[in-house]
Amino acid sequence: MSRSAPLHRALALAIAALLVSPSALAKDHQDATPSTKSILAASSPSEWRALEPDNTLYMMLPHHHRVIIELTPEWAPKHVANIKTLVDEHYFDGTSVYRVQDNFVAQWGDPYADDPKKAKSMGSARTSLPPEYTRVLNSSLDVTPLPDGDVYAPRVGFSHGLPMAWDPATNKAWLVQCYGMVGVARGVDPTSGNGNTLYVPIGEAPRQIDHQLAVVGRVVRGMQWLSTLPRGPEPLGVYEDASRRTPIASVRLASQVPASDRVKLEVLRTDSKTFKRLVEAKRNRHGPFYKDPAGHIGICHVPLPVREVH
Amino acid sequence: MSRSAPLHRALALAIAALLVSPSALAKDHQDATPSTKSILAASSPSEWRALEPDNTLYMMLPHHHRVIIELTPEWAPKHVANIKTLVDEHYFDGTSVYRVQDNFVAQWGDPYADDPKKAKSMGSARTSLPPEYTRVLNSSLDVTPLPDGDVYAPRVGFSHGLPMAWDPATNKAWLVQCYGMVGVARGVDPTSGNGNTLYVPIGEAPRQIDHQLAVVGRVVRGMQWLSTLPRGPEPLGVYEDASRRTPIASVRLASQVPASDRVKLEVLRTDSKTFKRLVEAKRNRHGPFYKDPAGHIGICHVPLPVREVH
Repeated sequence: MSRSAPLHRALALAIAALLVSPSALAKDHQDATPSTKSILAASSPSEWRALEPDNTLYMMLPHHHRVIIELTPEWAPKHVANIKTLVDEHYFDGTSVYRVQDNFVAQWGDPYADDPKKAKSMGSARTSLPPEYTRVLNSSLDVTPLPDGDVYAPRVGFSHGLPMAWDPATNKAWLVQCYGMVGVARGVDPTSGNGNTLYVPIGEAPRQIDHQLAVVGRVVRGMQWLSTLPRGPEPLGVYEDASRRTPIASVRLASQVPASDRVKLEVLRTDSKTFKRLVEAKRNRHGPFYKDPAGHIGICHVPLPVREVH
Repeated sequence: MSRSAPLHRALALAIAALLVSPSALAKDHQDATPSTKSILAASSPSEWRALEPDNTLYMMLPHHHRVIIELTPEWAPKHVANIKTLVDEHYFDGTSVYRVQDNFVAQWGDPYADDPKKAKSMGSARTSLPPEYTRVLNSSLDVTPLPDGDVYAPRVGFSHGLPMAWDPATNKAWLVQCYGMVGVARGVDPTSGNGNTLYVPIGEAPRQIDHQLAVVGRVVRGMQWLSTLPRGPEPLGVYEDASRRTPIASVRLASQVPASDRVKLEVLRTDSKTFKRLVEAKRNRHGPFYKDPAGHIGICHVPLPVREVH
C-alpha cells in the first residue's frame, strides 16, 4: 500500500487488507475469483431491468433520508394493490417507524393500527385481505435455482430479482424473508394483514416467518436509514415513548413525484449470465484472502445488485 | 386486548398481535409452543453459567453505552491472550469504531493499524500470531448438535454457549460467524491477525468468512450500540471522515473494574435440558400465529439467552 496516498484511500486500502475484501485484493492475482465490480462492469445493458415507477415507493424520513422499495405485484397482488391505494390517499404521511427490534425487524405505519379508538382511517383501502403468503409455481414465474440447499425450504432460487423458495411436493412458492425484504404485518387472523403496517428484516433473516406473512417487495436503496434506527425496548422493540418514533413525512410512488425528484435505478436480472457469474464467484471465493472457499452459498447471502443510471 | 390498558401496554399488545410474537399470544392456548419466557422461567439455577470476570470485556462507547463481550480462550487461546495483553496496557482507550458496513460488520480498534507510520504501538503484545481459525474436535469440547443441517458446514451445533460447526472428515471444528460473534481482523497474511482490530457481524451472518479468521467471543450485551452506528460509505463502510468514527473510551476486563461497576450476567448452558427445550420450541413454532411451523432451525437463528442476576 502506498503510504503517500491520501488518507481516505490509504485507510480504505488498509481496511481492505484487514478484512474480507477479496474484490480489492483479487485484481492482482490472475487465478483469483473475479470481484463483484469486475463482474458487473462486464455486464450488458439488457441484463439490467429498470424499476417501474408505478411499482417503486419513496418513503421519506427525517433529514431527507429516502428509502426506496420495489413492490412485487406478482407475489401478493391484493396486498400490493391495497398499499398503492393507501399511498394514493397519503395514508402513510405522518405515520412513523414505531418498532425496531435488534437483529429482527423495523416496522412502520400506524402505531395505533390495532386500536379501534385511535387507528387512522384507511380511507378507501380494504381493512382485510385474503392471505397471499404463497403462490403457485407455474410457467409465469421465471426461476433461477440455487443449487446449495437450504435449512428451511426444499428448494431455493431467484425470480425477477428476488430470493424465493418452493416445495416441489405442493407446487407452492414463496418469497424468502431475507434482509431488506418488505412484508405486511398482521394479527393472529390470517386475513388481518392489510398494509397499514409494514416491516423489514434488519438482521439475520427471520426464516421462521417464511410463508406466514405476505411479502410485497424489497428495499433497493436506503436500508441504512432503517437498520441504524435506535432499538426499542426488549423483547419486541416497540418504543414505549412515542417521541422516539421516527416520523414518516410521506410515502409516494415514483410515478407520483416530479421527474427531477426521481432516481433512476436498475436491478441486475437474476436470469442473466452476469448474475450466474456473480453467484458462482460468491460460492467459490478464492484468492489471497480466502484460503478455503465455502463452495456453497445461502439464499440470503447472494447480493442483488442495484445501480443508478444517469 | 383491553382498550383501557395504559398506552405502552396497549401498544405492545397491539404490536404483538400485529407481528410474530407467539410468546405473547401462546399463553392462551394449551397446545401452543411454550414461549421463551416460560421455558426460561422453568430453568434451574445450575443450567446457567456466570461469565468469568477474567474473560469478560467491557467496551465503553459515548453516552456511557457499554458493550459486553465474552471471550472464549478455548477456541483461539493465543489471540485471546494477546487481546488481554492489549487490554491490560489500555491499548484500546482512544481508538474507535472506524468501519460500519451495512448488513456486514462493525469494526473497531486502531484505524491506522496497517500504516507503519501512524499505527499505535502494541506495547508488549505480539504483532503476529499463528492462525487459530479452527481447532481439533476432541473430548475436551462438549458439543450439543443441531439436527437440521447447514448450507456451509457438514455439522453444526453448540459448545459452551456458542454456535460452532465441524467436519467429521477432518475432525476440525470452528465457531460460526453469527450475528454478535467477535472476530479478529487480519490482512492477507494469515499470521497478520493480532487483535488490534476486531469486528462483529451486524446483519446476515457472513458465513463465507467461517474458518478464515480467528473468532474470540461474543457480544452478550449492548449489540445495539454497534448495530445502530451510522454506516460508512460503500463498499467497505470505512468512514472517510475521521470525525464520524465512534470513539472508544476504554476497554477493560470485568475483573479490572470496581465491583460496583460490574454487571453480573449469566448465559444459559447449551448442554442443559432447558436449552434443548428452547431449541425444540424454536424449531417447531405452532400456535395461533404460526399456522405452518418450519420444523427446522438455522444455527444462527437459535437464541442464546443471557440474564442479569442481582
